Amino acid sequence: MPTPRRFFLCTLLVAILALASVQVAVAADDPLPSWHDGAAKRAIMDFVQHVTTPGGTGFVPEPERIATFDNDGTLWAEQPMYFQLAFALDRLKALAPQHPEWKEQEPFKSLLAGDLKGVFAGGEKAIVQLIMASHAGMTTAEFEQIVKDWIATARHPRFNRPYTECVYQPMLELLAYLHANGFKTYIVSGGGIEFMRPWVEKVYGIPPEQVVGSSIKTKFEMRDGKPVLMRLPEVDFIDDKEGKPVGINKFIGRRPVLAFGNSDGDHQMLQWTAAGSGPRFMGLVHHTDAEREWAYDRQSPIGRLDKALDEAQAQGWTVVDMKQDWKTIFPLPAGR
Amino acid sequence: MPTPRRFFLCTLLVAILALASVQVAVAADDPLPSWHDGAAKRAIMDFVQHVTTPGGTGFVPEPERIATFDNDGTLWAEQPMYFQLAFALDRLKALAPQHPEWKEQEPFKSLLAGDLKGVFAGGEKAIVQLIMASHAGMTTAEFEQIVKDWIATARHPRFNRPYTECVYQPMLELLAYLHANGFKTYIVSGGGIEFMRPWVEKVYGIPPEQVVGSSIKTKFEMRDGKPVLMRLPEVDFIDDKEGKPVGINKFIGRRPVLAFGNSDGDHQMLQWTAAGSGPRFMGLVHHTDAEREWAYDRQSPIGRLDKALDEAQAQGWTVVDMKQDWKTIFPLPAGR
Repeated sequence: MPTPRRFFLCTLLVAILALASVQVAVAADDPLPSWHDGAAKRAIMDFVQHVTTPGGTGFVPEPERIATFDNDGTLWAEQPMYFQLAFALDRLKALAPQHPEWKEQEPFKSLLAGDLKGVFAGGEKAIVQLIMASHAGMTTAEFEQIVKDWIATARHPRFNRPYTECVYQPMLELLAYLHANGFKTYIVSGGGIEFMRPWVEKVYGIPPEQVVGSSIKTKFEMRDGKPVLMRLPEVDFIDDKEGKPVGINKFIGRRPVLAFGNSDGDHQMLQWTAAGSGPRFMGLVHHTDAEREWAYDRQSPIGRLDKALDEAQAQGWTVVDMKQDWKTIFPLPAGR
Repeated sequence: MPTPRRFFLCTLLVAILALASVQVAVAADDPLPSWHDGAAKRAIMDFVQHVTTPGGTGFVPEPERIATFDNDGTLWAEQPMYFQLAFALDRLKALAPQHPEWKEQEPFKSLLAGDLKGVFAGGEKAIVQLIMASHAGMTTAEFEQIVKDWIATARHPRFNRPYTECVYQPMLELLAYLHANGFKTYIVSGGGIEFMRPWVEKVYGIPPEQVVGSSIKTKFEMRDGKPVLMRLPEVDFIDDKEGKPVGINKFIGRRPVLAFGNSDGDHQMLQWTAAGSGPRFMGLVHHTDAEREWAYDRQSPIGRLDKALDEAQAQGWTVVDMKQDWKTIFPLPAGR
């Protein structure tokens, strides 16, 4: 028979072990461990339970569980510039020796002089020129390889890690949680469809055929007896703002039941999602964390969040406060 | 002990039962029961076994098992006119009372007089006019309902059955066989994407997001405070001939490992498929059965099969001879 002291110690030990095992069990059961308990996490989990409960009032059959996600600023960061623009600039610098005329020609002249302000002074026209010069004039297979090479080697200037590690850990968990619950997730981005497809499957678990994005035209040609698709310097489709519902309808043909964005560029996608019948989830990532990431909204030239934030507040859409809602921002670097 | 005569009868009975059970077993094991044993069926089954055998030299991982099918003339009939054209004509007749000006205006005047020859005299321009007048000017939701109503009630003039029962039973079996083997099947059709999406899931087991087709432009608008997509009388994309590889690359972003067509409109899709590395299957349905369906190829204005047939023969692609290879053409009518 134990002494009272030994009995007390034993009891304490059992209690500690029991508590510890409960905590382990809770963590293992939590599909969103990087999310603080709060209104956003609760809203997400309530919604998923609501639409996946067989016989429930909100049940949505699996084939109709379409979820669409913006990419820049929603799944990965978008500061200090859209990552695809960083890709375009690196690409143009590499191409410059073959284009001596760029030394005298805007926006290339400013770009090569490192004068980004001068580049952006040219407005949207200058950006389109840069995109066309860097993204067109090769086959789709060649472009895919160029993107793969860049994404494997380029590093983010602030975080000094590959761009594919500047993705949001809480959103990776959300994607995995939705996949586990029978959702089919799509990226619906203003970014280039062929800039995303080469790496999204590995990084997000989203296959290339579930990417909707902006595109330039391609042309089927026979080259040395083999068919190729040449990328032409001509805009095909801009998948932003009003273009997002158009792209969703064109590529998916079903209305999402869940949509996530972070800027006014996603406003119409959220409106389109909200207008469906039955339960719908509309989410916005609000960049509020200057320390760990960036803080920006109504006045930002990149990722401006203004009208969509007003509507989210008026309609009761879920606004994720990055600083308050997320325990961590980025995943642990690979190999650690 | 049985008499010799009873013994003989018993043996015969056992033999008959054994034979019968073997035949049942063969039928149950045969994923393509409407296909005659022959080169085409063997080529299909050999290919599927080759790419799905783990560790085999031709193994293709499941996510890359993309199979693309033309629709008109490949999955369902296309005579005496493309079924979508029959839809357009029915729709225009219904709209005519609201358009008195059509009485004097081609191609509508000929159409309303029942003079199809006069309609077609206007060439491609006339067809585009008819398509725009019948397919644009409403929301995407309204158009979906119009298609659903038509497909539920219209009947094929020769077979007097719904158009969705003028699909090819052997191809339904092929789709199911591919699905069972981890293939993701897509329709890649010159037909309208929004004309197909409302019914393909039920008829082919192919979800709407796996349809690539021709499209007209749509525009996001707020109407009475609700967002809608208006269908505009403007061509967005023609998914035919050189457009098919472009559409495959745009919508799917992976090269098919198997593709099936029936006309020169599918030639470039088959070339694009064939040009991939690793095992590929290219198939053509050859309409050779005037009695049960139609016989047409090199000279046909609808579904002309000429250059693609030459290349199929030169390259050893699989040509399905409808008359020789298919035991049945159409499924049993619903409810029988």
